[in-house]
Parts: sequence; C-alpha cells; structure tokens
Amino acid sequence: MNAISKLAIVPFVSVDHMMKLVLKIGVEKFLTDLSTYIEEDFRRWESFDKTPRVASHSDEGVIELMPTSDGTLYGFKYVNGHPKNTKDGRQTVTAFGVLSDVGNGYPMLLTEMTILTALRTAATSAVAAKYLAPKEADTMAIIGNGAQAEFQAMAFKAILGVNKLRLYDIDASATQKCIRNLTGLGFQMTACASGQEAVEGAHIITTVTADKQYATILTDNMVGSGVHINAVGGDCPGKTELHQDILTRSDIFVEYPPQTRIEGEIQQLAPDYPVNELWEVIAGQRSGRRDGRQITLFDSVGFAIEDFSALRYVRDQLPGTGLYEELDLLADPDEPRDLFGMLLRCEKAIAAA
Amino acid sequence: MNAISKLAIVPFVSVDHMMKLVLKIGVEKFLTDLSTYIEEDFRRWESFDKTPRVASHSDEGVIELMPTSDGTLYGFKYVNGHPKNTKDGRQTVTAFGVLSDVGNGYPMLLTEMTILTALRTAATSAVAAKYLAPKEADTMAIIGNGAQAEFQAMAFKAILGVNKLRLYDIDASATQKCIRNLTGLGFQMTACASGQEAVEGAHIITTVTADKQYATILTDNMVGSGVHINAVGGDCPGKTELHQDILTRSDIFVEYPPQTRIEGEIQQLAPDYPVNELWEVIAGQRSGRRDGRQITLFDSVGFAIEDFSALRYVRDQLPGTGLYEELDLLADPDEPRDLFGMLLRCEKAIAAA
Repeated sequence: MNAISKLAIVPFVSVDHMMKLVLKIGVEKFLTDLSTYIEEDFRRWESFDKTPRVASHSDEGVIELMPTSDGTLYGFKYVNGHPKNTKDGRQTVTAFGVLSDVGNGYPMLLTEMTILTALRTAATSAVAAKYLAPKEADTMAIIGNGAQAEFQAMAFKAILGVNKLRLYDIDASATQKCIRNLTGLGFQMTACASGQEAVEGAHIITTVTADKQYATILTDNMVGSGVHINAVGGDCPGKTELHQDILTRSDIFVEYPPQTRIEGEIQQLAPDYPVNELWEVIAGQRSGRRDGRQITLFDSVGFAIEDFSALRYVRDQLPGTGLYEELDLLADPDEPRDLFGMLLRCEKAIAAA
Repeated sequence: MNAISKLAIVPFVSVDHMMKLVLKIGVEKFLTDLSTYIEEDFRRWESFDKTPRVASHSDEGVIELMPTSDGTLYGFKYVNGHPKNTKDGRQTVTAFGVLSDVGNGYPMLLTEMTILTALRTAATSAVAAKYLAPKEADTMAIIGNGAQAEFQAMAFKAILGVNKLRLYDIDASATQKCIRNLTGLGFQMTACASGQEAVEGAHIITTVTADKQYATILTDNMVGSGVHINAVGGDCPGKTELHQDILTRSDIFVEYPPQTRIEGEIQQLAPDYPVNELWEVIAGQRSGRRDGRQITLFDSVGFAIEDFSALRYVRDQLPGTGLYEELDLLADPDEPRDLFGMLLRCEKAIAAA
C-alpha cells in the first residue's frame, strides 16, 4: 500500500505530549501566553459563530460538544461531566478537541483537552480578574481545592502577581494536596478551617468546588465590599455556589449570556437580570471595576471561544517540538472520487504482501 | 513516568485499519451486518436523543457535528462538506467519529468515518429500499458515479440482490472508474449516455451527484410508475437533485423530518408537506410500498443514528482483530483530583531521565 499521504495526516497531541509541552514552555509562561490568545479572541468576539454548548444529559452526567468558528478556523471540544466518576478512579471531567481549517474542512489538530481545559479555565479567570479585581490584589481565597485549584493559583500568580493563598476545602486532605503541589512555587499559603476564615483579608475569592447541587459555598455576610469573586464551580444547570443575595450586590460579568443563564450562578436570577459581557470590557466598550467598594463577580462557566484560543495556542507552539504523533485520520484516495478504488488497492496490496 | 493507565486509553481505528477491517469481514458481509444494526436502531428510534446536526457554514463549505445517544451509548460524527476540495486533491467529505459510555462520559472508540460513512449511507439506502422498492427489483440506475456510487451498488446487491446497473455521469470517466472498480464483483453493467437512458427499465433510481446547487438530475417525464427513487445527493440547504413535480407524485420517506426539511429534496416543498418517517415503516407502524404503481422516494440526507449504528458495529467487530491503535487521549492521574500533581510528577520523571 502507498505511504499515507500528507493530506491524510492529523497531528495528535496525547496527554503525555501535552504535559511535556506545558513543562517545556513552563506552566506560568504557558498560562500567560495563553491568556493573550484568550484576550485577543475576546477582543474580536463579534467575529465568532457562537452557540450554547450542545449537551446530552443523563442521570449520571453530561456529554457536551462546544463548537465555534472565526470564519478561518473552526474548533470544537468534547467534554464530559460525571461527578460520580472519581469513585471508579476516573476524572469527573475529561476532554479532547479539534481545530480545523474552515476553507477545506480538514482537521489540523486533535488534542487531549483535560489538561488544556484546566489551563484555559484558569487563564480565563485571571484575564477576567485583570479587568475586575482591585488593583492592589495580592491575596486570594480558594474555596474548593480539587483538580482546578492549583491551575487557578498559578494563573493568578503569573498574570496578576497574586502570591498569597488562603485555602479551604471540606476535605482537609484536598487542601494538603494543594499546598504540597504548590510548595516551592512562590506562594505564601494558609490552610483555613472554614470558608469564613479563608475569605478574611482576601481581595479575590475563587469558588471552585465540585459535586454540589445548589450549594451555598459563600453566604452574603462572607463577602465584604471591594472584593472580586471568581465563581468557577457553578457551571451546569442545578449547580451553583453562591447565595443569591451576593449576586444582587455584585456587578456580574459573564462570557456568553445565553449559556451562562442556563449554567452559571445567574440561573438563580430572572432571565432578564442585567449582566455585563466580559468581552465588552476587554474590548474597551464597557468599564470593568469602577471603584474600591464595588463587588465584581465573574460568573465563569467556560465558553467555546476559550477552547478555540487554547487550540490555536497549542497549534502555534507545536512546530519543531516533536510533541505530537501523526494520525491517519482522513481517507485520502489518489483520486478523490475513487474511495472504493482505494479499498480495492488495499486488498491487492494485502494479497501481494 | 508511569505507564499509561488503561482508563486513559481510547482505541483508534485509522483509515488503514478501517480498510483492513472492511476487507477482513468482506464488503458485502460488512454492509449486510451493518444494515441489521441500522434496522435495529431505527426500530427503537423513539429511545434516541435526536437533534438536527450542528452546522457551521462558510462560503467554501460546511463543518458539522452529529451527536445522538440511546441513553447507554453516545456517539457523534464530525463531517465536512467542501465541494471545491477535489481541485486540491482533497476529499469533498471527510469524517471521523467517537462512541462514548453515557455512564462515565469516557470515549470508548475514535474512528475514521470517511469510509465508514460511505458504507453506512449505502447500507441505509438499501434498508430503505428493502421496505420501499418493488419486490422484483433487480435493475438500478445510478446517476452520479462519484465516490459513493460503488458503495450503493454493493449494498443493493448484498441486501436486495440488485445486480443490473445502468450508470450515468456527466463525466464519462467517472462511469468508467465505477465500471472498472465493480468488474468481477457480479454485476451486469451498462454505461449510459444520459440520465434518460440510465433510467430505462430500472426499478430503482439512485441519484448521487455532487457539487450541484438546485440541479435537476431527474425531470418528471423520466420517472415512470412503480419506481423507487433513492435520492442521496441532495443533502444540504440549496442542494437538490429532483424536479419538484416528482416529489408531489411520490410517497416520500425521510429519516428525521426536522433535518430533512432543511437539507433534503423536500426543502423545495412547504414546511408542512406530509412525509413519512422511515423508522415507522421499519418498526411496522406504517406501511412501506403499497402497490406496483406507487412511486416511492427515500429522501436521504444521512442522520446521526446511522452513524451511531456504524460506530456500534465497528466497536463490536474490533476485539481480537488488532486493527486499532491505543491512543493516550484521556488524562488519568493516580488521584482524580490531582491533575496538577500529574504534571509535577511528569516533570520529575523528565528530570530523572
């Protein structure tokens, strides 16, 4: 059989290759560079095809497809969310994604996105905080110390210089894991015995718990004036983290309102409750933080354009690294109309071998 | 670094492996077995999550995601359609797909689907014809002799015993390619000089042209009573093959009306024009062909459930064949909440190496 044609090959970044790529670039530089791609894409928000994610729900969880396109490139992510998975040693969330050329529809990149999603979620939070958090912010509470916590910490340090962490999780071993992983990376860390203790003195409050249905991780009395809340964990229908009174005291910033109203903290509010679109702030069309008393809230759910930015960034970093495999994903007959003939030639080649 | 965990591995069927799998099973047996999977899934049509495909259109073509689920398995296909691709030696249509476990959201299979789509499209056409074509049918006209033509011929021979082909294409070299490929496979073939000549004496008329915008491959006078029309080529908005008068003389059978009304021949008709759902015929809830004078029309556009059947079939055939690679697609830390720690352990392993 003929060697596989170049046209038929799609570069594939495995989990192992993604880890090596992140480490080669450096976690902080990766997050910082990725955040510039995200800002760039948020700035040209209006040029994207946007649609709420396409979700398939079951009793156990959800499987989603998140496509978007800027007219030149097309990207989509496959991602699941299955809270009970950790019982079997599986990830709650796993993901992979594809970047394609709009001009010919051919995939240009297939990549793991479990690690990449953790990085893009953290980078997006830090981008939002860059525009919304108080200027002098150097202390962040992180409530929920699971898989996303360290990534949030690294992104806020790399992009905003936040280096004091106040950590709390209902499971103290999660906090210990987080401290162990971040030791030696330039943080002052305090393990806290409650959410209330964690938020004391924090300029930024990150909530990133999992597995909860309409939980109240933050109550109204815990949130003082001037704080920025980075609400990451409430990200699907029926899953929220903040008491409703906090929402009504805050200026709320969201990624894509039609999706956030279904999935975010604001699912607790009326469907026409006024919210601000983050892209407008980044594009200079709307102010971010106005003053030192304002409570700002980034109601993060994760949107397809952030995955698109991440796919674009990885595509640009790959050349010369060798950190990908070549996947024979696309049929490429010598003559495009002769797909059946390709099968027959394969048969002859097998018979001759 | 630790060996890649079993949980993180997804079997991947490349184009080369798919060809070898099809040849190992045999094209006719593959089509016949696949058609039983398709019939099985059509029979339980109501148990599926159904949505029209999620399409991203551009001037050059379209990229689509086609998801569905039966509550136990979830499948989706990525497929593009770019008519001008053949100019650069690329396929007009390429595809790949994923089958996942609804219970934990983990992908169980990643496979090329360019070849597999050609097979499932042909198998679905043959299944429809089994219920709709005249019983004695042994002669089929195929108008359009491109990439799909031989697959249609093979499916109709394997599943219905149709062994006389009357072939026409505006490009005579396409017809010659088709005859060359099918020689020795048990067909009597006639190359025809026009569509009119091709349909003479045919019990089944398959239209499977490409690249045309609102073309009229069949005009009303070409279609006699008692014929079954298998309209495969008209499959996206603005692309049809049949004159409207044929539609109004026929009993029309479709896969999923909300999608076919956008993409199929019936986009030429009023949005409430009565059509029959093929699954109801297969499930015994509606009659197929009633008599020898009736014109039946299968307005095929291709639906996600057919891809689901094909993914399911391939998954069932793979064990023991060795015709797949193991892809490190899913991050699988030793401790599910310790994704960042996995990255740190990778760093240590690199430093130690």
